[in-house]
Amino acid sequence: MDNKHEILQLLRSVASGDTSPEQALLEFKQSPFEDLGYAKVDFHRNIRQGAAEVLYGAGKTPEQIIGIASAMGERGCRNILITRMEADAARQVADALPLEYHPSPRLGIAFPGPRTSLGNIVVATGGTSDMPVAEEAALTAEAMGNQVTRLYDVGVAGLHRLLSRLDVLMSARCVVAVAGMEGALASVVGGLVDCPVIAVPTSVGYGASFGGLSALLSMLNSCASGTSVVNIDNGFGAGYLASMINQMEGLEES
Amino acid sequence: MDNKHEILQLLRSVASGDTSPEQALLEFKQSPFEDLGYAKVDFHRNIRQGAAEVLYGAGKTPEQIIGIASAMGERGCRNILITRMEADAARQVADALPLEYHPSPRLGIAFPGPRTSLGNIVVATGGTSDMPVAEEAALTAEAMGNQVTRLYDVGVAGLHRLLSRLDVLMSARCVVAVAGMEGALASVVGGLVDCPVIAVPTSVGYGASFGGLSALLSMLNSCASGTSVVNIDNGFGAGYLASMINQMEGLEES
Amino acid sequence: MDNKHEILQLLRSVASGDTSPEQALLEFKQSPFEDLGYAKVDFHRNIRQGAAEVLYGAGKTPEQIIGIASAMGERGCRNILITRMEADAARQVADALPLEYHPSPRLGIAFPGPRTSLGNIVVATGGTSDMPVAEEAALTAEAMGNQVTRLYDVGVAGLHRLLSRLDVLMSARCVVAVAGMEGALASVVGGLVDCPVIAVPTSVGYGASFGGLSALLSMLNSCASGTSVVNIDNGFGAGYLASMINQMEGLEES
Amino acid sequence: MDNKHEILQLLRSVASGDTSPEQALLEFKQSPFEDLGYAKVDFHRNIRQGAAEVLYGAGKTPEQIIGIASAMGERGCRNILITRMEADAARQVADALPLEYHPSPRLGIAFPGPRTSLGNIVVATGGTSDMPVAEEAALTAEAMGNQVTRLYDVGVAGLHRLLSRLDVLMSARCVVAVAGMEGALASVVGGLVDCPVIAVPTSVGYGASFGGLSALLSMLNSCASGTSVVNIDNGFGAGYLASMINQMEGLEES
Amino acid sequence: MDNKHEILQLLRSVASGDTSPEQALLEFKQSPFEDLGYAKVDFHRNIRQGAAEVLYGAGKTPEQIIGIASAMGERGCRNILITRMEADAARQVADALPLEYHPSPRLGIAFPGPRTSLGNIVVATGGTSDMPVAEEAALTAEAMGNQVTRLYDVGVAGLHRLLSRLDVLMSARCVVAVAGMEGALASVVGGLVDCPVIAVPTSVGYGASFGGLSALLSMLNSCASGTSVVNIDNGFGAGYLASMINQMEGLEES
Amino acid sequence: MDNKHEILQLLRSVASGDTSPEQALLEFKQSPFEDLGYAKVDFHRNIRQGAAEVLYGAGKTPEQIIGIASAMGERGCRNILITRMEADAARQVADALPLEYHPSPRLGIAFPGPRTSLGNIVVATGGTSDMPVAEEAALTAEAMGNQVTRLYDVGVAGLHRLLSRLDVLMSARCVVAVAGMEGALASVVGGLVDCPVIAVPTSVGYGASFGGLSALLSMLNSCASGTSVVNIDNGFGAGYLASMINQMEGLEES
Amino acid sequence: MDNKHEILQLLRSVASGDTSPEQALLEFKQSPFEDLGYAKVDFHRNIRQGAAEVLYGAGKTPEQIIGIASAMGERGCRNILITRMEADAARQVADALPLEYHPSPRLGIAFPGPRTSLGNIVVATGGTSDMPVAEEAALTAEAMGNQVTRLYDVGVAGLHRLLSRLDVLMSARCVVAVAGMEGALASVVGGLVDCPVIAVPTSVGYGASFGGLSALLSMLNSCASGTSVVNIDNGFGAGYLASMINQMEGLEES
Amino acid sequence: MDNKHEILQLLRSVASGDTSPEQALLEFKQSPFEDLGYAKVDFHRNIRQGAAEVLYGAGKTPEQIIGIASAMGERGCRNILITRMEADAARQVADALPLEYHPSPRLGIAFPGPRTSLGNIVVATGGTSDMPVAEEAALTAEAMGNQVTRLYDVGVAGLHRLLSRLDVLMSARCVVAVAGMEGALASVVGGLVDCPVIAVPTSVGYGASFGGLSALLSMLNSCASGTSVVNIDNGFGAGYLASMINQMEGLEES
Repeated sequence: MDNKHEILQLLRSVASGDTSPEQALLEFKQSPFEDLGYAKVDFHRNIRQGAAEVLYGAGKTPEQIIGIASAMGERGCRNILITRMEADAARQVADALPLEYHPSPRLGIAFPGPRTSLGNIVVATGGTSDMPVAEEAALTAEAMGNQVTRLYDVGVAGLHRLLSRLDVLMSARCVVAVAGMEGALASVVGGLVDCPVIAVPTSVGYGASFGGLSALLSMLNSCASGTSVVNIDNGFGAGYLASMINQMEGLEES
Repeated sequence: MDNKHEILQLLRSVASGDTSPEQALLEFKQSPFEDLGYAKVDFHRNIRQGAAEVLYGAGKTPEQIIGIASAMGERGCRNILITRMEADAARQVADALPLEYHPSPRLGIAFPGPRTSLGNIVVATGGTSDMPVAEEAALTAEAMGNQVTRLYDVGVAGLHRLLSRLDVLMSARCVVAVAGMEGALASVVGGLVDCPVIAVPTSVGYGASFGGLSALLSMLNSCASGTSVVNIDNGFGAGYLASMINQMEGLEES
Repeated sequence: MDNKHEILQLLRSVASGDTSPEQALLEFKQSPFEDLGYAKVDFHRNIRQGAAEVLYGAGKTPEQIIGIASAMGERGCRNILITRMEADAARQVADALPLEYHPSPRLGIAFPGPRTSLGNIVVATGGTSDMPVAEEAALTAEAMGNQVTRLYDVGVAGLHRLLSRLDVLMSARCVVAVAGMEGALASVVGGLVDCPVIAVPTSVGYGASFGGLSALLSMLNSCASGTSVVNIDNGFGAGYLASMINQMEGLEES
Repeated sequence: MDNKHEILQLLRSVASGDTSPEQALLEFKQSPFEDLGYAKVDFHRNIRQGAAEVLYGAGKTPEQIIGIASAMGERGCRNILITRMEADAARQVADALPLEYHPSPRLGIAFPGPRTSLGNIVVATGGTSDMPVAEEAALTAEAMGNQVTRLYDVGVAGLHRLLSRLDVLMSARCVVAVAGMEGALASVVGGLVDCPVIAVPTSVGYGASFGGLSALLSMLNSCASGTSVVNIDNGFGAGYLASMINQMEGLEES
Repeated sequence: MDNKHEILQLLRSVASGDTSPEQALLEFKQSPFEDLGYAKVDFHRNIRQGAAEVLYGAGKTPEQIIGIASAMGERGCRNILITRMEADAARQVADALPLEYHPSPRLGIAFPGPRTSLGNIVVATGGTSDMPVAEEAALTAEAMGNQVTRLYDVGVAGLHRLLSRLDVLMSARCVVAVAGMEGALASVVGGLVDCPVIAVPTSVGYGASFGGLSALLSMLNSCASGTSVVNIDNGFGAGYLASMINQMEGLEES
Repeated sequence: MDNKHEILQLLRSVASGDTSPEQALLEFKQSPFEDLGYAKVDFHRNIRQGAAEVLYGAGKTPEQIIGIASAMGERGCRNILITRMEADAARQVADALPLEYHPSPRLGIAFPGPRTSLGNIVVATGGTSDMPVAEEAALTAEAMGNQVTRLYDVGVAGLHRLLSRLDVLMSARCVVAVAGMEGALASVVGGLVDCPVIAVPTSVGYGASFGGLSALLSMLNSCASGTSVVNIDNGFGAGYLASMINQMEGLEES
Repeated sequence: MDNKHEILQLLRSVASGDTSPEQALLEFKQSPFEDLGYAKVDFHRNIRQGAAEVLYGAGKTPEQIIGIASAMGERGCRNILITRMEADAARQVADALPLEYHPSPRLGIAFPGPRTSLGNIVVATGGTSDMPVAEEAALTAEAMGNQVTRLYDVGVAGLHRLLSRLDVLMSARCVVAVAGMEGALASVVGGLVDCPVIAVPTSVGYGASFGGLSALLSMLNSCASGTSVVNIDNGFGAGYLASMINQMEGLEES
Repeated sequence: MDNKHEILQLLRSVASGDTSPEQALLEFKQSPFEDLGYAKVDFHRNIRQGAAEVLYGAGKTPEQIIGIASAMGERGCRNILITRMEADAARQVADALPLEYHPSPRLGIAFPGPRTSLGNIVVATGGTSDMPVAEEAALTAEAMGNQVTRLYDVGVAGLHRLLSRLDVLMSARCVVAVAGMEGALASVVGGLVDCPVIAVPTSVGYGASFGGLSALLSMLNSCASGTSVVNIDNGFGAGYLASMINQMEGLEES
């Protein structure tokens, strides 16, 4: 029961009444993770969530990262995302296993393998300094098999820069809008496109930006429909969700 | 240029270089709204955003609501959502035009017409008192042509209530998780399903819930991937976004 | 020493050394206000600040308002602004002295007289519900002798509504941008025009708008140069400052 | 009057009326502490509170720690907890007196001696990075004579990890739930067990976790009965209280 | 499997390996609640949590309260706590079923029956205005079978009032300290007794008490060991937890 | 269309109806910026905003600064302001192009050229430690061709220092009031002068100044008319706006 | 031991070693209050604090107020302050005992008797709407036997009003500065006088005054030495403290 | 007019009408400070405020400190307090002029001279880590000629430590209560003594102490009359105010 197809079959037999939910839960829970002592590696996540493997690097030693990523690699995982890994740790990890590392968003991709390049996700930023967070979103989405178009430095204080790229924006299946300071980019983009917009407030700014709080509140209060928000600086979360949306299957009956 | 097909054709000719973006912008902007004095009714929104018409009732007089909705109805709009409309106002509006009114979420649907019932959106709540916000989400999604399954009062302090409905949750194309107080529902649901989860914090609670702030922060910090957040009590926004996601077209050609 | 000319002469003689600052201060302070017991009516303010008379109505009884305004009127003041005066109080005041009253911004103009209509101030709002604050700004500016152009309901979630009035915006000598929720209007306008922009956050909104805090922070963090902010809902302050800027004298030597 | 038995006898004679409360207070207060100049060592605390000795290391020099701990050790104290002591200080202290040091929670145990291992306290964490705080709780409880079971990395975003250890949880006399980010662990655990749950928010997280505030508010708003909260990162306080509860005497004799 | 004994037997057989945790979970989940449409009445809670039934009255109509309480009463529940029920609702409920109602804490006890009066819980308040919250705690604890001693109006600004009742405080098995404003009562009590102290901040106060935030922060920062905190005004939660602690079984048999 | 005159002519032809706004927008948008990859250099800003060129140094590498400033310099720009540039970066930039650098406000002026010294802007500070922010404002205004008078260390706790310079204050066309701590300077100055006052809160202070929040709130709540506020420490924004106001053309011709 | 003299004698004998502190404490605690059931009337407070009797009216019923005040009156207390008593309650109280009532500060003085009028306390306000809080301070101080001079409506936005009363200010032994909004009055006054200044922030204001928080922070950050702050709207506390300071005995004998 | 006597004479002649306030103001303002360019040294402060000279060291270079202190010393000032001066700066200053330096509160006393030791100020702290702030208060008061008694480490979690020093507390003319964390010391002390209590919140603590905010709010909400608060960590301000109060002249002659 190691791929999404099998699990879907099981759930459909639940839906049809052939299997009880309790029975399904039991099958689900057999051997779902490997216990490394310092972490429980969850091999079922990609079954339950249909996604690439992710390893949160923050607060883990290089040794722990190597241990977990290796266990994943041995099970055949490819394109394993390692978030918030500092350059020093990356060097150690790269000695132990194949690693593609991006220093600005501090993102690693272990056991890189072939990827698809599906659909179209646009990642837009208000300014140049929002780029590290935007890159975390863009690289995450690319590692999960999506085509990504970058629209950087198109903040609303120079609206013509955004408007001159209207065609790019309007062709997106999903937009990730990354901005600090007043966070107005999400509202403006949300009013222009007809696809879901994921807003990412960044901690870029000074004064009364309060570490991203200003942009966060601004984005939550966006008047544009179809907009939702992730945590401050959470480029990974935005990229992951954008991938989910971009890769939605069509409605058979529609 | 009054339906989505035409506008897509135009944008594809932009993509192919046959039309410049500036030219497209100009075509776009011809006669986009009707000026009623107190409001600019935007008939192009459903072109640009592919969505049902929405009329924000908050802060508008019954007369203004009637004026705007009538103008929309005359242009052929059906299932026009009117948000945050008090019961008194609804009575006046119902005298002037066909209206379906839901008092708990204070939501009206003017000029109700036939709707599709596509896909599957699950709306779940932590408690009974989150129901008005959840109904705003569910009714919005239904008015926009989606099939909605309600899972109310499945908060995490009684986890077995949620687990016994696991089959319903796992069959969703999109989940709207509505909760006040500690807002843990979004995290738990987000860890169980493999589809986008839209978290809606509610202002339900007392003490240190601070009008929904506690649930909002909790949901923003959710460790579960694929989760994003809308504003406190913004059931409409969640239902609208859930509809967008549920009705995504498949990726056939890419 | 009752008009601005005299006071300027005095100050120039200070600048030239003919009068010491201390001497000027003394002249300044002779008979500057009338003590009504419950308030000190300041007849020198229009000397020192070159502005119409203003009477803050909040927290004053109708009797106090009548007393103060009458004292001003007897000294020859015209177009006396009375801010935040409820309709009930206005009725009482209107019985005692000539009054022009605007219920939505709760603004009165006592002893209305002839006014000029100088320059060009644009007052723009994001939505319909920002209108009361905007009207406080616009009526204040008009009472102080300025020409005002209103651009209401041009919020950034429907950008084409704003862009279609670009000519109006760009002809302004000063813009007052009034918006609640995410407050993005100030940034967008600030990037489009080359005159000072005064941003007024409004307490309109719900959820995480926190009574205008979201719009306030957003506006303070605006990336657009030339933008400054007044207090939440302070339409009067914005109109007053806009008048000051609009009526600046040219630089003799430039 | 140096052990708990004597003090209980005294208080019972108060309850029976043989001794007045004032008299008891006087007996209580004779020679309760030793004045070292920079600190007042309180030898009565373990009488009044029935607990192991604790020495708050934060803001004390190694010399001060050695002085206080030595004074305690000379009075016969064993298993003296020293909280928040940096590794450098620990090295100096270890040169002067017998010390067991745990670097991750920065916790020392001076004059380690034999301990009991009573009852059953479960310490659970949401993630790997909550471990230092959890270890402070667990080691505190162990030093005070309790049996502790650790359940680490069982956060609610992977609910099956928690459910698969349900037997461990349900056998606890008291649970310490340690979590950062959205802090949902306390609610979920609180709904599953029928013993007191002590929630410890941690400052782990980023973005809108605001140094533990998000987890703190979430835990305070927990819908589960039987849950209370200690300060952010206060593993010591949680372990101390858990020990108090675990070692409650039965009601039979009261 | 309807009483605590049976469930304990089951869990012991889990502990001994005779039953798997998964099997236990399944047995657990059979028929755990009755679905009334608007609420899921949870008859297993008292199995899982070993506590009296509780019905959160806030946000429920009198009809819903009657429906849920009647269903409980028919299953034999007695002393059902109904929290935050307004006097009007109480009158309607009292017409439909036996009800004991306390207006100041807005607490009802449906189907009142015989209770034990075990152990000793002290409920102390800083001032007279903290009494409603304190009564919610005291009545909750009494309904759950505990003996409660009230110490009201013993705030720290008149320390002698507290000290003169030291004997009462020191005989408690658990203290609930209820205080608004600066919340210092919890710290002072926590330093005097050697049993768990549950601190309840109240929203009593004005100015910079910010609806209980001041007392909440103060209590969280208490320097006294053995103290934990529940939500602002959460008298019920404190009484419930105090009952759990007071009724702990002794360790002899474990 | 490279200077302000041409653009004004265009807009007047819009006003007269000879050109449509849409047409004007198109002319506007031709070749407005140069794309350097990491930034879009905006050569139209000085057309639209009539101001000196500004380059936000924060978050840019010295190489990026050199690249952008050189592109500007080659187009003939002079007196290019570079904000928030650290001393190290300044040294590298100074090796590549002509640069005047001010270390305390971390402000650079690239390609310095001749400037006018028009009108009169007064920059006042509450204390000595507000000087870096004040210098950012003063140097910005000077680089943009304004005459600036500095009034430093005239805080309200020593009122006579401010009053003894009343003549300087009252001769200003615009005052920039820079203060941290309680920020009272803006109110006092605003009550004394009859020109616009731009308040700049600074992050100077300790304790409950909360990084400038105290001064910010104080300034927003100023009772003096004609006062507006920019972001904490935003000396540049204040200087820029002061220049706009100081250089307003007179109304004679409008 | 019912007057201050006796207690001083006792404490001096403590100081001289003739009495132990413990003994003194015991004497202190004999019969210090009368228990009315709902309140503990504290007859020792005026011994320990040397002040007039005070009865906090907030949250007490008229019956409770009458009960407590009567008990005090019977013991010979005169000029008993009753704070925050609504007009309705005052009418009931006035029927039962001699009462002087001031509706604007909601302050009652029960059993009014002869008073001294010592020293000189100045109570100043920024605006007219700060008067209720100021009157609470002034009447409190007068009831406690002090001479009070009122300086109302002397806010810093019209500095000449304050300066023209400089002689009054400088003759004070203690100043109470009452202000809302930006709270600058305390700083300006603190810089002018050489006596203690007690700052009282008021909740007067709107927008970002946040219920007095802005004025509170401003006053805490005052740069003027000799200034301290009481809670928002706490006129009573300021008047009480001002009386203490005004009535300090001279240092002759020390 | 260089000492307090002369200025008092002047003011009395104002009070008697022999001199007008305006005239007094003029005399006041002649040569009040020396302009060093970077600072205005205010020689009149000790006239207006009757206090020792103070020099805020924060944000000043050693050279500036030497310059200002030397100018003061040359005018005959002795015991000049220099606050918040780092050890490095102190070493440089000590090379240039006579300096007594206290490293823990970072306080210097330049040109130390003979001092009186009047009255009795008690400085109390909750814990050992509050000592640096307490020492700033104590040394400030001593430098200004007051006798100071230190009561350190008497926090309320060990109430007997405080009660055993009750005699010291009750003999004070003014108490400075310094505490972090929950700040309860001020309330407890305020209820015990009958003299003014100045509360100083400290930034000592962790978790939800939020840099002193918890203690600040707690102290502002103190129920004890006669208590006021200064800024977080503002030991200097408390010592200064305590000196003012301690040295109040008696009322005999007024």
